[in-house]
Amino acid sequence: MSKDIASHRLHAQLIGQPGSRDWLNTPALILDLAAFERNVARMADFARKHGLALRPHAKSHKSADIARAQIAAGAVGLCCAKLGEAEALAAEGIDGLHLTSPVVTPPAIARLAALSRRLTSLSVVADHPAAVAALASAAQGGLPLTVFVDIDPGIRRTGVATANDAVTLARLIADCPSLRYGGVQFYCGAQQHIQNFAERREAIAERTRYLSKYLADLAAAGLPPKVVTGGGTGSHAIDAELGVLTELQVGSYIFMDREYAECDLDGGGAMPFETALLVDARVISANTIGLITIDAGLKAFATDAGPATIIAGAGDDARYRFMGDEHGAVMGTDLPGLGARITLGTPHCDPTVNLYDAYHVINGEDLVAIWPVTARGRSA
Amino acid sequence: MSKDIASHRLHAQLIGQPGSRDWLNTPALILDLAAFERNVARMADFARKHGLALRPHAKSHKSADIARAQIAAGAVGLCCAKLGEAEALAAEGIDGLHLTSPVVTPPAIARLAALSRRLTSLSVVADHPAAVAALASAAQGGLPLTVFVDIDPGIRRTGVATANDAVTLARLIADCPSLRYGGVQFYCGAQQHIQNFAERREAIAERTRYLSKYLADLAAAGLPPKVVTGGGTGSHAIDAELGVLTELQVGSYIFMDREYAECDLDGGGAMPFETALLVDARVISANTIGLITIDAGLKAFATDAGPATIIAGAGDDARYRFMGDEHGAVMGTDLPGLGARITLGTPHCDPTVNLYDAYHVINGEDLVAIWPVTARGRSA
Repeated sequence: MSKDIASHRLHAQLIGQPGSRDWLNTPALILDLAAFERNVARMADFARKHGLALRPHAKSHKSADIARAQIAAGAVGLCCAKLGEAEALAAEGIDGLHLTSPVVTPPAIARLAALSRRLTSLSVVADHPAAVAALASAAQGGLPLTVFVDIDPGIRRTGVATANDAVTLARLIADCPSLRYGGVQFYCGAQQHIQNFAERREAIAERTRYLSKYLADLAAAGLPPKVVTGGGTGSHAIDAELGVLTELQVGSYIFMDREYAECDLDGGGAMPFETALLVDARVISANTIGLITIDAGLKAFATDAGPATIIAGAGDDARYRFMGDEHGAVMGTDLPGLGARITLGTPHCDPTVNLYDAYHVINGEDLVAIWPVTARGRSA
Repeated sequence: MSKDIASHRLHAQLIGQPGSRDWLNTPALILDLAAFERNVARMADFARKHGLALRPHAKSHKSADIARAQIAAGAVGLCCAKLGEAEALAAEGIDGLHLTSPVVTPPAIARLAALSRRLTSLSVVADHPAAVAALASAAQGGLPLTVFVDIDPGIRRTGVATANDAVTLARLIADCPSLRYGGVQFYCGAQQHIQNFAERREAIAERTRYLSKYLADLAAAGLPPKVVTGGGTGSHAIDAELGVLTELQVGSYIFMDREYAECDLDGGGAMPFETALLVDARVISANTIGLITIDAGLKAFATDAGPATIIAGAGDDARYRFMGDEHGAVMGTDLPGLGARITLGTPHCDPTVNLYDAYHVINGEDLVAIWPVTARGRSA
């Protein structure tokens, strides 16, 4: 720990100095402040305009600073994927947290109960009666804990798989004095990255018709959900148009990685969000024609979504490929020499952020802030 | 930072308590102490028997505790891939460090000079005259810095690409009063994971014949390298047989991931090393026949080398697949229920370790120690 803090301190001395970006140790995770702020404002405006609650997903950024910026722009709170993320954000004063994964083991439920005592608003999902019973027991004597019924959108990851199970679970939650029935969660993860807008729209519309059957059965049982939470950066415009979700769990819009940059997000062709998350790297070997080696490899980028993109520092035809844990190759016809800086876009933002301890927040060539990745590594 | 320490403290209370492994927050990185200690001893014995210096690669483990165990067993020091790794280990008192990647930018060379002042032994590689000149200039007035000529084994990542360039660079180093010529580095990364032993042996033998031309030219120029450092877990037995390397940079042997477990390491058929690195996960959803969801996804395992393996907790036919950032699926005919523990082997150890803050060191079902991943995230 002490070493990471020391490294932050070293960079902290650079804050506010003109041209200080060039003195960062590389690879360095970079956040373009102006682009980030425009992204935050645009999604907040979109949600407001469409009467949707905005509860951005903290699993993308794991940052208390970013959570505060989202809340300041109008978010009702944050989603967290893991209990550890929620604990880390709560310790930094972030409230209004919703856990999007079931919490089921005794140690995890004990942590959840402790967390609920320090927040004014905490909700969690459940997809099994045994988990609801355990939550009810843990919540006794504390504040009411809000529980959502998690509905499986068909990928068999988490969630109930029938409308009947949804009604049973909602009734179980509503009947527990120590629990509050919050509504339902329905997250269509598999559809978010369909590149073509019309195809993505049809896929989301089909899944939303599927969801409507659950909502009708819940209403018929006297358990209509007040909140229907779900959606992502890829579906937000479609979800707003369809009008079934009441709350958006969008995450990646603040950063825009290569996966989302390749999608037409709102059917308008022009991208409503900008690439704000970057990695600065350096050329450390240049002994080959048409190829240079940079200091950013598969410990610098998540590898689940293909290669990083070259944003600046090399010719237009330059492309990146992984060269092992510590190195990457940049290939092209117009390449810089030893020591030069190359700026890259991330292939998949969430797991890339999770590799770093801090965002280096920049305004052009100047480091203006360092924001810790508050919940880095809090996968438990 | 404070949150991670808090989380360590929580687990620290479990150390020495019988059955405490079952109370770890999951996913948890697990080190099987007995298997790890046998691996450390076996490689140390192997190197001793073959008259080879052993300088294990810290990029695999990033741990001061593991470095100390390797040195206690006879290692001459450690390799580090990045300056940040070396700084973090040096801060914990580890000496005898060799940097296996070129250090070329002014901020990095300034850090290297500072590091050299606090160690009795530090070496680095170079593959370009400009980098040698910069190192020489930075080392003036300090202790002599040892520099190795990095030779490209043909993958065009780092290293000189001709014997002529190797002689030029060696002479440049030897002629600098502030530098010491340490020898050459030759790491055949691409050949380490060839599964069939005979094929791997032939590939390494061919590359070693290629290296011999460099060594002959260096000797003819009056610059025979005292140390020829390289090799990995996949080639260590072959390197020892060929007798050209004088020092082994093995890393993964302490852990044994799936990639190496699928190789015949010494041509004997029986695996000389044991799987010591594990991840404990928990079932968080079980609503589907033949599939359960665990809390370990692509933030819990590196994704560059295929799926994790199921070690314990499910039937023999159980297999894992990634289900997004936070989740994994375990599919099979004999699966446990909600909350059950599943133990997995890692697909690729180095970048998996880099996702976690600490090893949970276990003896069977008991947590016996927590070892921080000292240099986690020190990719710069």
